Amino acid sequence: MFVTLEGPDGAGKSSQAAALAERLRAAGVEVVLTREPGGTALGERVRELLLRTDAPERTTLADALLFNAARQQLVEEVIRPALDAGKWVLCDRFADSTLAYQGYGGGVPLDDLRALARVATRGLVPDRTLLFDVPVEAGLARRSGGPSAELTRFELAERHDLAFHQRVRDGFLALAAAEPARWSVIDASHDAGAVTEEAWRGLEEWLVARSP
Amino acid sequence: MFVTLEGPDGAGKSSQAAALAERLRAAGVEVVLTREPGGTALGERVRELLLRTDAPERTTLADALLFNAARQQLVEEVIRPALDAGKWVLCDRFADSTLAYQGYGGGVPLDDLRALARVATRGLVPDRTLLFDVPVEAGLARRSGGPSAELTRFELAERHDLAFHQRVRDGFLALAAAEPARWSVIDASHDAGAVTEEAWRGLEEWLVARSP
Repeated sequence: MFVTLEGPDGAGKSSQAAALAERLRAAGVEVVLTREPGGTALGERVRELLLRTDAPERTTLADALLFNAARQQLVEEVIRPALDAGKWVLCDRFADSTLAYQGYGGGVPLDDLRALARVATRGLVPDRTLLFDVPVEAGLARRSGGPSAELTRFELAERHDLAFHQRVRDGFLALAAAEPARWSVIDASHDAGAVTEEAWRGLEEWLVARSP
Repeated sequence: MFVTLEGPDGAGKSSQAAALAERLRAAGVEVVLTREPGGTALGERVRELLLRTDAPERTTLADALLFNAARQQLVEEVIRPALDAGKWVLCDRFADSTLAYQGYGGGVPLDDLRALARVATRGLVPDRTLLFDVPVEAGLARRSGGPSAELTRFELAERHDLAFHQRVRDGFLALAAAEPARWSVIDASHDAGAVTEEAWRGLEEWLVARSP
C-alpha cells in the first residue's frame, strides 16, 4: 500500500508519519518511511537547490520540474522496489504537494502539473492520501516556533504570503473533495495524539482488509 | 529569430555557435548566445548535478526532468526576453537534445519527453535548428582529444557506449527528416571554416527576408 501525507508546513506531518509507521510496524506491517524532495541522494541535492537561502533564482514552473525530477528518482529507487516487495510506503509529500503549492498557490496550470507528474511517476498514484489540515495562521505559527508562538512580524507583514498559503490550503481541500475515495481529511489542529488516532482510523480499514 | 544548434559532443557546436554569432553581429543583428543546461544560475547548478563525476545516481527520466527544469529557467530568464526585444537567440542545445539523448539514446518514450518539453518551454519551438552531424567514431575521437586523436581504449571497450551514441545520431537525423522546414543538416566532418560556411547559408535566407 502506498500512503502519502499531505498538508501545509506546520501541520505536523513528519511526526505523524513517524507515529503511523511505528503503529503499522507494531501491527506486523513492513513499512518504508520516506519524504519528498529528499529520500535519495539526488533528492537531497534538489532539496538544496529549492530550499536553501543561497538557492539560485527559479520560476515556479522550474520548481515544479525539479520536484518532479526528485519524485521520479524516489519512485524508481525507493517506492516501487518497496511496493514490489510487498511493503507499505509512507511518503511525506508527493505529487499533490506540487498541485497545491505550484498550482493553486503559484498559478501554474493544473493540467500542466498533472502532465508532469504522470510522466515523472510513470502513472503511480497513492492508494491513500492523508491530508493534515490546519487553518493557515495556526500552521504558520507552528512553523515559526511551536504551537503557542505568535505569528512573526515578518509573517504578519507578508499579506501576500498569507494569501499564498490560503490558496495552498484551499487547493489541498479541493483536491481531497474531488477524490474522496483516496483522500482522508484530518483535523490537525488537535493535539498530536488525537491527530494520530484520527489518521490511524483512516488506515485501519485496509489493515482489516489485508488480514487473513 | 530563435536558432538552436544540435548534434553530438565533438561535432564542434560551441565554436560554430561563436562563429555564427560573430557573423550575425557583423551583419548588424543583435545576438544572444547561450547554452543548455547552463545559461542561468539554476542551469549551472543543474549542470553540476548532471555532468560532474560526483553527481548523484539518476534515472534517465530524472535526467530529462532536470534538463527541462534548466530549460524552463533559460526560456523565461534569457530566451523570451531576448526574442521580445527583437534580438536573435543562438542556443547550444535545446529540447531536441533531450529527445535524442534520453529518448532515442536512453529509451524514454518520445511522447513523454515531448509532453515535458511542451510544458517546460510553454510551447516555444525554435524557428531554425542546425544539426551538426558527424559519424559517431569521429565525434567521440574529437571529444577525447582533438581531431586527430584515436578513440581511447575506454571508448573502444564500451561497445554499449558506441551503440548509444549511434542511436543518438540516428535520432537526430530522424528528427531532422521529420521536420525539414525547421532543420538544416550540416556535414560537420569537414574543417571548421567550411562547416561555418554551410551553417551560415542555412541562416542567410532569413537575413535576406528581414532586410528592408
